[in-house]
Amino acid sequence: MARDASRVEAFSDAVIAIVLTLMAVELLQFAPQNPTGTDLAGALFHEWPSYLAYVITFAIVGQVWLTHHNMWRYVVRIDQLLLVLNLLLLLFVAAIPFAANLLSDNLRGPVGDQRLTAALYAGTVLGEALFFNLSWWWARRRHLLHPDLDPRLARAVARRFLLGPLLYVVAFAVVFVDPVLSLVAYLLLVGLYLIRGPGDLPPSKEIAPAEG
Amino acid sequence: MARDASRVEAFSDAVIAIVLTLMAVELLQFAPQNPTGTDLAGALFHEWPSYLAYVITFAIVGQVWLTHHNMWRYVVRIDQLLLVLNLLLLLFVAAIPFAANLLSDNLRGPVGDQRLTAALYAGTVLGEALFFNLSWWWARRRHLLHPDLDPRLARAVARRFLLGPLLYVVAFAVVFVDPVLSLVAYLLLVGLYLIRGPGDLPPSKEIAPAEG
Amino acid sequence: MARDASRVEAFSDAVIAIVLTLMAVELLQFAPQNPTGTDLAGALFHEWPSYLAYVITFAIVGQVWLTHHNMWRYVVRIDQLLLVLNLLLLLFVAAIPFAANLLSDNLRGPVGDQRLTAALYAGTVLGEALFFNLSWWWARRRHLLHPDLDPRLARAVARRFLLGPLLYVVAFAVVFVDPVLSLVAYLLLVGLYLIRGPGDLPPSKEIAPAEG
Amino acid sequence: MARDASRVEAFSDAVIAIVLTLMAVELLQFAPQNPTGTDLAGALFHEWPSYLAYVITFAIVGQVWLTHHNMWRYVVRIDQLLLVLNLLLLLFVAAIPFAANLLSDNLRGPVGDQRLTAALYAGTVLGEALFFNLSWWWARRRHLLHPDLDPRLARAVARRFLLGPLLYVVAFAVVFVDPVLSLVAYLLLVGLYLIRGPGDLPPSKEIAPAEG
Repeated sequence: MARDASRVEAFSDAVIAIVLTLMAVELLQFAPQNPTGTDLAGALFHEWPSYLAYVITFAIVGQVWLTHHNMWRYVVRIDQLLLVLNLLLLLFVAAIPFAANLLSDNLRGPVGDQRLTAALYAGTVLGEALFFNLSWWWARRRHLLHPDLDPRLARAVARRFLLGPLLYVVAFAVVFVDPVLSLVAYLLLVGLYLIRGPGDLPPSKEIAPAEG
Repeated sequence: MARDASRVEAFSDAVIAIVLTLMAVELLQFAPQNPTGTDLAGALFHEWPSYLAYVITFAIVGQVWLTHHNMWRYVVRIDQLLLVLNLLLLLFVAAIPFAANLLSDNLRGPVGDQRLTAALYAGTVLGEALFFNLSWWWARRRHLLHPDLDPRLARAVARRFLLGPLLYVVAFAVVFVDPVLSLVAYLLLVGLYLIRGPGDLPPSKEIAPAEG
Repeated sequence: MARDASRVEAFSDAVIAIVLTLMAVELLQFAPQNPTGTDLAGALFHEWPSYLAYVITFAIVGQVWLTHHNMWRYVVRIDQLLLVLNLLLLLFVAAIPFAANLLSDNLRGPVGDQRLTAALYAGTVLGEALFFNLSWWWARRRHLLHPDLDPRLARAVARRFLLGPLLYVVAFAVVFVDPVLSLVAYLLLVGLYLIRGPGDLPPSKEIAPAEG
Repeated sequence: MARDASRVEAFSDAVIAIVLTLMAVELLQFAPQNPTGTDLAGALFHEWPSYLAYVITFAIVGQVWLTHHNMWRYVVRIDQLLLVLNLLLLLFVAAIPFAANLLSDNLRGPVGDQRLTAALYAGTVLGEALFFNLSWWWARRRHLLHPDLDPRLARAVARRFLLGPLLYVVAFAVVFVDPVLSLVAYLLLVGLYLIRGPGDLPPSKEIAPAEG
């Protein structure tokens, strides 16, 4: 029984790990290949939007992993739809580096391009947050969660899961003030989410006695 | 005993996860690097065949994972040939992003190129579907499946596995009508496969009592 | 105890899976991006050395996984040096796509370049085969293998492991006759290795009673 | 209980495995695509800084895996902060190929660029070493380690973990003598670390009886 869920976790882990390192693959492209005669320090510094996008995307995708880890600890049964919802979640997660890259490339571009790419980025992370909400809602509805998990707690978690989309909308709105500030807002909000988000579920040992 | 199969699953998961995200790596290439002075929205919209290919390939590869997951739950013993069949399956799966990319690059090209690349795409997914059929057939023949799995059910699954190649041939034929429609057909057929394909095997807990 | 080995397996699986798909990443580069006005079929056909290199590298790396899988089933304890030998094995495995790519790019070049790149390819797979031999030798010497594994069998496996380097040297020698034939020789030899190599160890259930 | 830690290990394994092979992806870029008429042997030899960077980064990232493997064997409980520290560790690990690439591209550049990129490389591996130290310190402080692990041993390990940053600072300082020598110093120091670092913790079976 637990075995089914553990393969879903392993597969999701692999996808999330690849996405996490995709940004590093992108960074590799910026290593100046013919540095002779150029100002290397300046050239490297000029790429700061890429570093910022790397750190922020790492934070968001890291947060995705933490949330996935916390949520799936309670999933003891799976059905076909939960698997499909998880794949749709991964579809949006895998698109995050693309959106992040697009945004960082346009941080110093015209205002219209800044807003367009910020909207695409926000849409991508919103899609990710949406499918977390749907997965949890479906798992609760179909009783796929650990039977000892208090239903009130599961409901409270569902409410807290709504924090994610809300915070992402706020970070998006900040782009109309300043696009760089918007990226920083994502970073702050991931920090807030770490403290107040569904991450602080009670440890599984408290609801589920050791398997042995 | 179960351990052998679980390493095959973990390895296949890793390959499938990488393939799933390979399309996202490709998307990264399209993020316009020097957007100043260009129409970014138009440039992004112009890449729609890439987004379509991303979503469809994600659907097909996601479906591959679901099918692999469902099938291997019943495999309790492995032999050398089953491993080789699984590797051949992965050979075709890993080639899907290449074929998808080729197809999306030629969706607006000459009719001859559309048909050539659609044929290559169809051939790749057909190869994948073929090795699923062969794996299941071999596992049944060599009694590598869980002993409690009803032979009639295993035979019914084998029949349903034939749906995959059939549907892919249909989607390929549609390319002669319209190449974009053909891609949409893949998407619809993956949806149909999710509902009527071998994915809805009875959960393993019903055929196999908990390991503990 | 088993847990230690299983993490080594999972990590090696991930590296091997990435290497297996690296060739597919390379293939992606060949998808003609601006096909208008060119002969697509001809352009695609012209890349046949890449497809050949993809299939052969997939075969070799697939064989690496099979051998790794078969060997590590018997490893019940690990020590620091075995881990280092395993990392050195992975160092050579991860370099295979580079060597394969170099070889396929030069299959139609001057004879000197053909031989140079064929020698580099052979050196890479020889390094891989060498560290398999060393790992098995060390695991036997330090009694890291399953205690129920017959020492005569373990010795016989060690002798058969020597097949790998031997066959790779043969395939390399063929390059002096014809470089394409040399690639085909690798493919044939992987097939031979599948039949007569250490892959046909007795299934672990025969030497090791179920863990439960 | 153990299950939580094992998913952290699997996820970290995936990230480290990808980073390990990222350098190989970079190598792929150097395979000369149009070799006709050029001196292939010379062109290949000219890329020696890339090969050196590949081997050294493989050594460092391999060492990261060994240390992670050794450390997490003792972690039996996790909390949110330990997961965040682990993600921050991975953030630096994933940036190593970028820094390695930058360094190898500038090994033959102006002295200022050599020192700048050597400093960035040293900073990246120092960040990695720092978060290993912090993870171990936090795990000890919050009693997340195996209860049978002798506190004096845990403290001794913490002291030895400090070796990492120290050695990296030494390797960095050598860059002021000679940048290539600095890379060789990393390699030697990884070797030293393998012998005297926290890697030679007592095997887990000695502190933790088999799970069954």
